[in-house]
Amino acid sequence: MTKITTNEFSGPAFRPQQFISRERAENRLKTDEINVFLENDPRNAKLVQDITTEVSTDPVLKTGTDFYDMSKAQHREVTARKIARMALYMEQDVKMAMQEYRTDIVKELQTNDETPTLTSKDLSVFDKRLSIISNQDPQLGTRIGVHLGLFGNCIRGNGTNEQIRYWLQQRGTLFIKGIYGCFAMTEMGHGSNVAQLQTRAVYDKKTDTFVINTPNLPATKWWIGGAAHSATHATVYARLIVEGKDYGVKTFVVPLRDPETFQLLPGIFIGDIGAKMGRDGIDNGWIQFKNVVIPREFMLSRFTKVIPSEDGVRVATEPALDQISGYSALLSGRVNMVMDSYRFGAKFVTIATRYSVGRQQFASKSGEDSGFTEETQLMNYPLHQYRVLPHLAIVYLIAPAAYNVMNTYHNTLDQLYKVSSGGSKKQLKPVSDKLKDLFIDSATLKATNTWLVATLIDELRQACGGHGYSAYNAFGKGYNDWVVQCTWEGDNTILSLTSARSILKKFADLSKGISQTGPSFSYMSMQFVLGVIKNSKAAKLDTLADYSEVWGIMLVKILHHCVTVMGKTKDSDSIAKYLVLISKFHAFHTMLQAYSTKLSKPKTSFVTDETTNEVLWKLYQLFSLYFIDKHSGEFLQFKVFSPDQISQLVQPQLFKLLPEVRQYCISLTDAFKIPDAMLNAPIGYYDGDIYNNYFDEVVKNNPPEPNGPGKPSYHELLTTMLTRGFESDGRVVGSQNPQILSKLGK
Amino acid sequence: MTKITTNEFSGPAFRPQQFISRERAENRLKTDEINVFLENDPRNAKLVQDITTEVSTDPVLKTGTDFYDMSKAQHREVTARKIARMALYMEQDVKMAMQEYRTDIVKELQTNDETPTLTSKDLSVFDKRLSIISNQDPQLGTRIGVHLGLFGNCIRGNGTNEQIRYWLQQRGTLFIKGIYGCFAMTEMGHGSNVAQLQTRAVYDKKTDTFVINTPNLPATKWWIGGAAHSATHATVYARLIVEGKDYGVKTFVVPLRDPETFQLLPGIFIGDIGAKMGRDGIDNGWIQFKNVVIPREFMLSRFTKVIPSEDGVRVATEPALDQISGYSALLSGRVNMVMDSYRFGAKFVTIATRYSVGRQQFASKSGEDSGFTEETQLMNYPLHQYRVLPHLAIVYLIAPAAYNVMNTYHNTLDQLYKVSSGGSKKQLKPVSDKLKDLFIDSATLKATNTWLVATLIDELRQACGGHGYSAYNAFGKGYNDWVVQCTWEGDNTILSLTSARSILKKFADLSKGISQTGPSFSYMSMQFVLGVIKNSKAAKLDTLADYSEVWGIMLVKILHHCVTVMGKTKDSDSIAKYLVLISKFHAFHTMLQAYSTKLSKPKTSFVTDETTNEVLWKLYQLFSLYFIDKHSGEFLQFKVFSPDQISQLVQPQLFKLLPEVRQYCISLTDAFKIPDAMLNAPIGYYDGDIYNNYFDEVVKNNPPEPNGPGKPSYHELLTTMLTRGFESDGRVVGSQNPQILSKLGK
Repeated sequence: MTKITTNEFSGPAFRPQQFISRERAENRLKTDEINVFLENDPRNAKLVQDITTEVSTDPVLKTGTDFYDMSKAQHREVTARKIARMALYMEQDVKMAMQEYRTDIVKELQTNDETPTLTSKDLSVFDKRLSIISNQDPQLGTRIGVHLGLFGNCIRGNGTNEQIRYWLQQRGTLFIKGIYGCFAMTEMGHGSNVAQLQTRAVYDKKTDTFVINTPNLPATKWWIGGAAHSATHATVYARLIVEGKDYGVKTFVVPLRDPETFQLLPGIFIGDIGAKMGRDGIDNGWIQFKNVVIPREFMLSRFTKVIPSEDGVRVATEPALDQISGYSALLSGRVNMVMDSYRFGAKFVTIATRYSVGRQQFASKSGEDSGFTEETQLMNYPLHQYRVLPHLAIVYLIAPAAYNVMNTYHNTLDQLYKVSSGGSKKQLKPVSDKLKDLFIDSATLKATNTWLVATLIDELRQACGGHGYSAYNAFGKGYNDWVVQCTWEGDNTILSLTSARSILKKFADLSKGISQTGPSFSYMSMQFVLGVIKNSKAAKLDTLADYSEVWGIMLVKILHHCVTVMGKTKDSDSIAKYLVLISKFHAFHTMLQAYSTKLSKPKTSFVTDETTNEVLWKLYQLFSLYFIDKHSGEFLQFKVFSPDQISQLVQPQLFKLLPEVRQYCISLTDAFKIPDAMLNAPIGYYDGDIYNNYFDEVVKNNPPEPNGPGKPSYHELLTTMLTRGFESDGRVVGSQNPQILSKLGK
Repeated sequence: MTKITTNEFSGPAFRPQQFISRERAENRLKTDEINVFLENDPRNAKLVQDITTEVSTDPVLKTGTDFYDMSKAQHREVTARKIARMALYMEQDVKMAMQEYRTDIVKELQTNDETPTLTSKDLSVFDKRLSIISNQDPQLGTRIGVHLGLFGNCIRGNGTNEQIRYWLQQRGTLFIKGIYGCFAMTEMGHGSNVAQLQTRAVYDKKTDTFVINTPNLPATKWWIGGAAHSATHATVYARLIVEGKDYGVKTFVVPLRDPETFQLLPGIFIGDIGAKMGRDGIDNGWIQFKNVVIPREFMLSRFTKVIPSEDGVRVATEPALDQISGYSALLSGRVNMVMDSYRFGAKFVTIATRYSVGRQQFASKSGEDSGFTEETQLMNYPLHQYRVLPHLAIVYLIAPAAYNVMNTYHNTLDQLYKVSSGGSKKQLKPVSDKLKDLFIDSATLKATNTWLVATLIDELRQACGGHGYSAYNAFGKGYNDWVVQCTWEGDNTILSLTSARSILKKFADLSKGISQTGPSFSYMSMQFVLGVIKNSKAAKLDTLADYSEVWGIMLVKILHHCVTVMGKTKDSDSIAKYLVLISKFHAFHTMLQAYSTKLSKPKTSFVTDETTNEVLWKLYQLFSLYFIDKHSGEFLQFKVFSPDQISQLVQPQLFKLLPEVRQYCISLTDAFKIPDAMLNAPIGYYDGDIYNNYFDEVVKNNPPEPNGPGKPSYHELLTTMLTRGFESDGRVVGSQNPQILSKLGK
């Protein structure tokens, strides 16, 4: 093996490094300003950079290309080691957030009843660390996310204040101590339809306990992350049965394993789900319960309580909030997945952009500074720009919406806790309204963006040709790890349908005079809607605001159509295909609005450089135009645009923007500030030395066989085959047989 | 672990088996007739069934779900073992095809110079076996395909008759004996642009040999299937340099390893490419050459010859055919990939259809024959029908086109050999025209259908929800193995562009009075084109023929538009996005025509049952309508249809057809006759016992850990973490602490 550089050779050579560094020098944007714009504000941008540096260089947490060669067993173990490492960062991060470096704050939080409960602000630094590590190693992110995000938020959403303090704080859950939790919701037979889960928790009055049982095979808890090997406890979704009456699905904390010996407790049957399409580092398991007894007090009872008394047993519920917070554990997951979409998308668009600028193919022309013929950079082909750059715009457009929905989530949940602890019923309504809007926004953004990023990874892999198929260039495992996001914590299609039904209901309510005020429903102002329906409000692309507004017009038209159809058929199945589009278009509108609102004011954009500002607006336009063109069928069918507007306005603008954005594409991806160690894909490393970097990683991971170069351990299988029958007369020397050669030379 | 069936339980139960068997009983189609329709004719259908049974039950070739848990090293070795097994079938298959059971025909073919050269007919049985085994194990198919299809066809396409006989027959290549070949075309720096490959073969007059060299790192042969471990010889694409003059890229047979010891020969440097997104069973390698000497006669010289004489060296070429047959090795791969698309698509659509019929979720209603509430079968939702059934139609529509292009390939290549051996220059033109049309048809069908099937696998996996993400249900590895088909042997985008440019040129030639006669260019008749351009030929959907014709109209309009734009800009880059669509629409048109032509006559369809015939026509309509709706943007922009026609004709028809096809979906997938062993996905097995089958495979592949149930080998990592700090006071017994419980119960 050798890294040949010269060998009596004077043909054309590739110079990917020079291309990339030249573009860096010539098309300079203020990447620091852009990074602050993307990461919301200067303080947060700095924190993100600090954490990124830490986790990508930490000796335990860092990932190299050997990551792509690991077996399932290795991934499982390495992930566990990383979890333990992350747990150490946790303590430091809580201290930093609370600015409590001088006391053993974790001990105090666990042992002192008087210490206030941790708020989401106290956990914000670690939350960010978790979000960033997920970009480096999604399976690690999930494995911790299941414990903190699902198990933890299930308790936080459904537990009493005392239960929250006990399980999360005192028992150590929040610090990844004492307890390792899993989230036992999904069953083999029920995923999306949570209300029909079949696991049973029957109240036994005599012993004041619940008896948990798995009644049949499809009721087996399935896909439970952490269950196979690591979880000591589970939050179990089970039907509450009291004196024969079924109260529907509630949540229970159930111990699974002795945390010291890791032996399963009696009545707990657990198995490994085994191999998956991706994320093999997660120990997903199945769980069956056979007469597992837990104290009544282990039922999470913020909204539903079982109250035994001498007269009998009473079940008290607060129905308004009971259902909604039953799902709140999933809410945080969805919100995080919007942020994941931004980070994951940024990674792959960086790789593909650098490769496309460095890679040359076809269309020889004379080089400027040499006598060689030189092939064209991929990124200079209009079609290649069309394949890559809209994905760059998509990633940019996700960021502000991701930060918005994250902030709304934290604010709304804080309010919910306050209100539901305080008990003032009057304050419930506005919080519950906000929560419903948050469900819509998080669902539409989660579904739309996880789909967009799945397509992004796939299309960018193809844009990198064969080298995109190498495991070492990140696309393969990246795609496999990613696509589960389209299915879990709310299947994208189901989320789209349910959120679009809510949007449709809001729209229908307009005719009853109920106006809509939520920030993402600006297109539902009475004036706007009437303007569109009466055709006085026509779609145009004159001002920057128009690029968002066309989507508002599209939404009103399609909603209006659906209301009309529903009026006739009463059958929402008949408009299901439109509902999926409504969810998507609502997300586009939300993203365009969030982006343009932020970019409009220097106070919120933090962008002072004029060129930088202009280029950022181009990405906004590109996003809108790309999807208008992609959905030109709907734009034409609903007469938002005419055929001539599509071919003479939308498409020419789109193809005019592409080379303008192309010019700055290296700066625009540098601005994500993702270090090589996090990209973990040699064709996308910063220095652009594509071929050497890629070759080095391949050779590092595949050193020559110890028993001779290129000789496989299984070579006997091949030699036996090749020499079978009469064929063993050493024909390798055919090249020295003059008789044969003379025949071949004829 | 336990397979609980009853446990003091009386809730609703799932009955997937009953659903599926009921549909089988009630909606009966003639699946045997359909299978014959799909597999071209009765004789071929029987052969396909026989081979399918053999390879799916053969003890070495069969695959179980443990396939999904294998490491790269295991895949490599198992694949080698299977190759050796397939080699034994090869001898039997040649005998069967030649009906020569009584002589040792292979020995005769190898040793007797008088025996005629093998034709593609003699290899047809093994070819079919290879196509079918590829559906069961794509990496095995590729590893043999590289040897026979690429190495073999490279020699067949570029070698003299003597060279063909020597390398393929006498040396044993065709029987997987003596030689194992690889195809060293692609380099690290050049994939699509074959003409710019940089490996050099310099003729040394003194020794009458070629010296092969790799001049720099990007010239390293890359992705070479079989190179890492198994190949003894390569067909190397290298620049022919004679007396300083560069004659462009030609092909050379270069020995790599001693077939007995598997040691690399001097000057050959080989490494393993390592992990890939999929197909880890293929030992892709890289190759560098350092002064490797081969005899002049090892250059494949059908169309280019180096002729030394006393006066100097002469290079004789036959330029017309030289270039075209340089690529003919790839041609067979493309043609095979169309057939792969049919078989692979059929597999996944069978799995998803059975799961969708057996799986229930949401929308409780009273069951007919029980007191239970029963959830709705997924397949009964219109949106789910829309997600699954068009893919069923796609698979059906691929089959006839796949058989057509396969037959055309064999006929055309046979003619080419005859003509180029006979030497009659006059006969060259018609064969060369046919070859050019074959390039267009195979390229458009390969690109379009490999893309369609990639989308099919992805969307059907999502339609199977979480269980689609389990490795044991085939989608994960299936997708990873599949998608390389979109990139290799002609990148789909490049293939689309080049073939669309040829189509555009044909269209432009019409204005010069040159009419087009190829069977897939029926829409280019002068009359039809003029009718469309003058708007006298309007799109409609009245007759069955209209469902193909609308695509002809669409093609003429978009081609006309492109010719106009090109006339102005002279820049084909500016219409690149349209060119990709032209390639796709041309493929759709070809598929619809092939399907309807075959189905129109009982003599070619072999379908006598009336209902079956009707249902097959519905799939044809569904295919056309689905894609008209998907491409409504283009249909509207180019005014093939009006917005009202889309919303009042196309879409209502589409949604009316779906439930009609749904009724027969079990029969329509049974008709593929793919045994469970080949599906290798328990949620899709024939008996429909989804949950038991799936559970069994998961448990079989993940038995409990030997050192205690659910205890991971790495549990110390977790216990150390959980008990760190002051936290080690056995809080698992919290459930017996009355003080804690009384707080939690508040």
